[in-house]
Amino acid sequence: MVALMTDTPFTARNDIDEPIEETRRFAPKFSADGLIPAAATDAAGGQLLMLAYMNEEALAKTIKTGEAWYWSRSRGALWRKGETSGNVQKVVEIRTDCDQDAIELVVKQTGPACHTNRRACFYRIVERDGVLRFAD
Amino acid sequence: MVALMTDTPFTARNDIDEPIEETRRFAPKFSADGLIPAAATDAAGGQLLMLAYMNEEALAKTIKTGEAWYWSRSRGALWRKGETSGNVQKVVEIRTDCDQDAIELVVKQTGPACHTNRRACFYRIVERDGVLRFAD
Repeated sequence: MVALMTDTPFTARNDIDEPIEETRRFAPKFSADGLIPAAATDAAGGQLLMLAYMNEEALAKTIKTGEAWYWSRSRGALWRKGETSGNVQKVVEIRTDCDQDAIELVVKQTGPACHTNRRACFYRIVERDGVLRFAD
Repeated sequence: MVALMTDTPFTARNDIDEPIEETRRFAPKFSADGLIPAAATDAAGGQLLMLAYMNEEALAKTIKTGEAWYWSRSRGALWRKGETSGNVQKVVEIRTDCDQDAIELVVKQTGPACHTNRRACFYRIVERDGVLRFAD
């Protein structure tokens, strides 16, 4: 169980007395490791750009600043998307799913979303034999 | 480290001798809990439908059968999407991302993707004050 920060606009799960799917209270469920997955989609067209993770602080900062913040599992650090590359994500909408255990960030993406300089991270297709084919 | 099943079309990570972003070998990275997140997107239009998890077996079955299989964390069981509801996902493409630690399933969705009978799971928008607004 992750204790909620006091200055975040989240509701604790045990304060929800209606089905989590229908409540208007935002009570995101972080995993045991304190993270929630966040899929960034393109505000222009809806394409899935990338999938990353947020901890409570990253989510709170994203809500507060209107720019995407994530938690880098490899670096063990908060990460403002585009802070070194300049390829920031301006958040148009933050959505949560039925179970409130995933986030969709609808973003206006500056430049490519992927660190390989491709528009989106999902540029390879898995063939049935386990060979990857590069799309477009 | 998760040992790979012998009958799956995956390559072990340590057999990859080129950057993971550019290889044609499929070497998905499962988390310490043996899971990889999978975002299902609509083959017609690209909308993000749902986000769930796969273990190695679910991913192998998805590749083999052309239908989406997931791992239910709450039930601790393999789960063929739509097995009770009939709302199956026919897989048009399986994609992986730059780091090969996430999956995109491009699917032809029968019926609604969400268990609440909505088309997609991300039907609520997070407002800055932590109140959720129902979209459409």
